[in-house]
Formats: sequence, C-alpha cells, structure tokens
Amino acid sequence: MRPTLKDIAKQTGLSITTVSLVLNNKPNKISERSRKLILDTAREIGYSRNQLAVSLITKRSHTLGLILPDIRNHFFSYLAKGCEDACQQKGWTMVLCNTENQYQRDVDYLNVLQSKGIDGIIYCMSLLHDEKALSLIREQIQRSSLPFLLIDRSSPELPFPVIALDHVHGGYLAAKHLLSLGHRKIGCITGPSYLIDSKQRLEGYHNALAEFGVPFDKGLITEGLYDIESGEKATPYLLKQNVSAIFAYNDMMAYGAYRELRNQGLSIPNDISLMGYDDTMITELLEVPLSTIHQPIEMIGQKAANSLIDSIEENVELRSSIPYEPTLIIRKSTASPKVC
Amino acid sequence: MRPTLKDIAKQTGLSITTVSLVLNNKPNKISERSRKLILDTAREIGYSRNQLAVSLITKRSHTLGLILPDIRNHFFSYLAKGCEDACQQKGWTMVLCNTENQYQRDVDYLNVLQSKGIDGIIYCMSLLHDEKALSLIREQIQRSSLPFLLIDRSSPELPFPVIALDHVHGGYLAAKHLLSLGHRKIGCITGPSYLIDSKQRLEGYHNALAEFGVPFDKGLITEGLYDIESGEKATPYLLKQNVSAIFAYNDMMAYGAYRELRNQGLSIPNDISLMGYDDTMITELLEVPLSTIHQPIEMIGQKAANSLIDSIEENVELRSSIPYEPTLIIRKSTASPKVC
Repeated sequence: MRPTLKDIAKQTGLSITTVSLVLNNKPNKISERSRKLILDTAREIGYSRNQLAVSLITKRSHTLGLILPDIRNHFFSYLAKGCEDACQQKGWTMVLCNTENQYQRDVDYLNVLQSKGIDGIIYCMSLLHDEKALSLIREQIQRSSLPFLLIDRSSPELPFPVIALDHVHGGYLAAKHLLSLGHRKIGCITGPSYLIDSKQRLEGYHNALAEFGVPFDKGLITEGLYDIESGEKATPYLLKQNVSAIFAYNDMMAYGAYRELRNQGLSIPNDISLMGYDDTMITELLEVPLSTIHQPIEMIGQKAANSLIDSIEENVELRSSIPYEPTLIIRKSTASPKVC
Repeated sequence: MRPTLKDIAKQTGLSITTVSLVLNNKPNKISERSRKLILDTAREIGYSRNQLAVSLITKRSHTLGLILPDIRNHFFSYLAKGCEDACQQKGWTMVLCNTENQYQRDVDYLNVLQSKGIDGIIYCMSLLHDEKALSLIREQIQRSSLPFLLIDRSSPELPFPVIALDHVHGGYLAAKHLLSLGHRKIGCITGPSYLIDSKQRLEGYHNALAEFGVPFDKGLITEGLYDIESGEKATPYLLKQNVSAIFAYNDMMAYGAYRELRNQGLSIPNDISLMGYDDTMITELLEVPLSTIHQPIEMIGQKAANSLIDSIEENVELRSSIPYEPTLIIRKSTASPKVC
C-alpha cells in the first residue's frame, strides 16, 4: 500500500489538513518543529504525493525538459550534469531527451515534453539542414507558451533567449594565441555555417587577424559538423593549403584532425600546431594534450536550469545571457611554426 | 491557442468522436483514408493530446525512467543512447536521471519517477556503501508495483530481474589472454566487492588461473571504484607486488592505471601489460590503444528498454537475461612479459 497523507497524520498525531498544507507547500502558520516532523515522517515512510494528479491541479510538475543533440559527446553530458545538479538542488526533476542530431526528433520531443506537462524546456538544437525544419520548430515553440531557453547553439531563425558564452571572444583568444606564436597561415575547421556559435568563433578569428595585420584568406576556412569524422576529413584539404596551424571549432573535430595528422606521420606541434575548443576530457587524454578554449560546461548547464526555474517560480523574465568568459588553455599541441 | 480535437474535426470534416477514436487508438471501424487524414492533420496543426490528463485515465504514460550513476562515463551515455533509441522506435519517451553515484539520489529519483506516473524503471545502481541504503531501495521498489529492471549492476540485496552480460566469461577471457601471453603475476583492480558484476569478473579470473595451473594470490587483488582516480591509486600497490600485467575491471580504471604507469616512466606493453573492460571510446583514444573486453553497450540498452516495454504492453513477464556474450579485443597494450 502506498502511504497517504492519512498515514502521516496518524503517525505524527497532526491533522490531515496540517499535513497537507505542509506537503503542498501552502501558506501556513505551522511551527517549524511540526513542519520538520511531517517532512521527516513523509520521507521515512516513503510518501510521495501523487504528483501526476497534483500537477493537473496546480498546473506545475516541477520538471524541466532538456533536449540535447548527442549525449555521447562529453560537452553535452557535462552540460546535462550541470542542469541536473541545479534541478536537484531546487527539488526539481530533469527529463533528458537525446535527439542524435536528427531534427525530426527535435520536433517530436518538443511535442512530447509539451504534452507531458513539463514546466519549461532547455533546448540545444540538432544540426539542422534546412530552414523549413527551423521554422517548424519555431512554430512549435511559439504555439506552446512554455518558458523556453536555448543553450549553446542558436540561430537567427529561433528568436528565443539564449544562454551561451561569447564565442567571438573565444575565437579571438584561439587565433591570437596562434598568431602570437608566429603562425600566419592558420586553417579553421568551423561548425555548420548557419550556427551563430560557429559564426562568432569565425568573427573572433577575423578580429585577431586584423589586430596582427594578417589578411583573411577564405581558402583556409573549411566547414565541419562538430564531430570526429568531419574533423578528420577536413584535415587533408588544410594541409594542401600549407597551413602551419589548425584551429578546430570544437574538441571533437580537433581530435579528428589529431588522428589524421598522426596517421600522416606529422608531429604535433613540431610539424603543425593544433587547437581545440570546449576543453572536454578528450583534450587531456591525448598523448599530446590539446591547447583549447575552456568553457565551464557544467556551470553553464547549472546557470541555464537556475534561470529557467527562477523564471517559472518567481516570474523573473527569461533573457539571453553570457554567464561566463571563455578562457585560453595552453597545453602541448601548439608551438611556434618551423622555420623553413 | 493549443489545437484541440475540435480543430481537427473542423479541418477534416469528420466528427469529434471519430477524431477522438483515432487519436486515442481506440478500436474503431474508421477507414484507413480517414485515419491517415486525421493523423496528418493532427501533426500539421501541432496537435498533441494532453497526455497528462490522458495518463490519469489510461494509467499509462508511455514513458520509461532510466536511472544511471554517471552520465559522463561513456559506458552509461552509450547505454542511455541505446535505451532511448528503443523507446523512440516504439513511440515511448525516456526520462533520464543521473545520480552521480550518490545513493540518496537513487532513493529520491525512484520516488520521483513513481510519483510522476512513469510506466516502468530501468535502474543501474550507485556505488552503495551500506546495506541500509540497499534495503531502503529494495523496499521502495517493492512498495511501488512498477515494472522494474536492473541493468548492468546488481546485488544479492536487490532481488529483481537483471539485464547484464556474463562477466564470469568476460573475466575469464581477459585473464586467459594475459596467461596465454605468458603472464603469471596478474594484478586485478576490481570494482566494489559487493557488486555482482565485479565478483563475476573475479570468478572468471580464478577460472582462467586454474586452467593454467597458476595458484591464486589474493595479494594481487585490489579494489577500486570504477573511476579514473581509483585506478590511478591502485597502481603503485600492484607495481610493488611485481605484477607483469594489470587487469582493470573497467576502462575508466584502466585509464587511471595507464596514466599512473606513464607517469612512472613505464612503457606499455614493454614493461607492463594493461587490460581494460567495456570497450568504450577511451580505449581507442590513447596513444597505446587498450586491449579490453567488448560489451555491445548500446545494444544492451536497447534490449533493456524493449524488454521493459514488452512487459508493459504485452504483459510478457520480466526475467533476468544475458543478451550477449562479452568478447576479447586485442589492441596494443598487452604483450608477452619481459624475460628477466
């Protein structure tokens, strides 16, 4: 038998009304001592409100949905951990949905979460390949009136609040580091060009070049998909352009480039410098640990969940924010170019 | 405004009853053509049943809960992906809860999932440190009458169906590989001793020793926590015992040992052989890729979700099962011992 309010009332000697007021967190004048007794007893006997019924009445489920493109990528599993830690601290639950970068799943999960009475959604979009998909998603979000927050990835097609770092600055730091070492032909493996976070890194790269008086050469820019394979594939092209350094716009692609460079018998950083972005675990695992741009990933996740919960519980307006600054991490994969 | 059954009825020219029968999947004699029209229209206008209300009536939410100890460990993120793929294929949703190996969170999440009207739970337990915690969890599960499946980890204290591989065989394969190479002093970094999967690997190690006529030496066995740090810490002790090979009971601990061995200037496999278990991505990333025992992790996750859903939808009894065999993967970290 599942324990009920009645059981708690009986065990504590308090009235059902008192127990109900406390457990439903309603305004009351009950003493702190009774309150504690009720909460302790509830936990002890394994009482759980039938939140399904409760949420139909209060219209609140104290549950956030988090939609991520690829839980096997460390960037996202750390983001999820951060979100969940924040939820846990506030007594909320987090529902995690993994889209495998298939945008149809984005649409499906948005639909499912909405119909499950979730209180708000944190969304990191799949790599979408057409505007139609984006407008479907935009409509879906606008139709639901759920509090909604984009995390990390954003697009001009999705006019919603975003939590992400200043990737113009991140791109600038990476390029400046390589330029300071003496590199002048720096190849970039970007993310998909329609993603703002990729555009921003590129803008930062531009800014650093300008600062050093190095002309921009679009032949040194090639597009990847933020995964290992696309980093690997992009590398032979950049080598043909005689770059002395490669800046991959995330660590997964940097690892792909690393693998390809080693396969070709090139030494990092003696023959070529390599720089990642994100500072995931992978950068430290490698024999030549990667220089990269650090994002405090778990903290970004925490910040997102806290903002969303505050907007729901305290009616604080959701706004875009840049909670932290990216920072440069210098490890072993970057050095001055060989003098030819 | 959220679209309703009425909107679909209006747009299709069919009655609300017809629309409701189709969308609620009730027995009906409606033509395939009308059915398709209704479903297409529903999707087009973004209709989603208020599943929260529906689930209170049908007592089914088509949602599974998956409780995992550490989503940042590749073993678990791949397991989650497998579960979610299976759910997706069957039109179910998966709620993922991450306990960070803190057993209080196991208790909390079991409670939360139960109160959220989840249809069944797949559970991989935290590293629990006392019997009281285990009995709390056992009671909690028994009190709810939810379909319940343990995955990967199990304990004699939790008498529920389990999906896991035959780790006696896995442990045997690993030890036999090292013995066949000529190793006689093989150190083990086990998992926590109360976990059945760790006991099984040790049993397999015993069996292989017996087959080769090598006496068991308990001084060569040391206990870890299935994380990088404990693998690292255990290594100096094993080196003092003059082992020529180390068998870590998962890849995370093997990576910890790897790091420590390299820090001490030892060459793998020239000075010492090293073997992991799981075959996660980490084993291939390393400069000396690790020999390991392969588990088809995503497939295990799929199998678990499919079994649980079948038990709910078709009343198939949940039973423990061993869906696949572990296999030996030989990479570069194991070789014959140095002749002294």
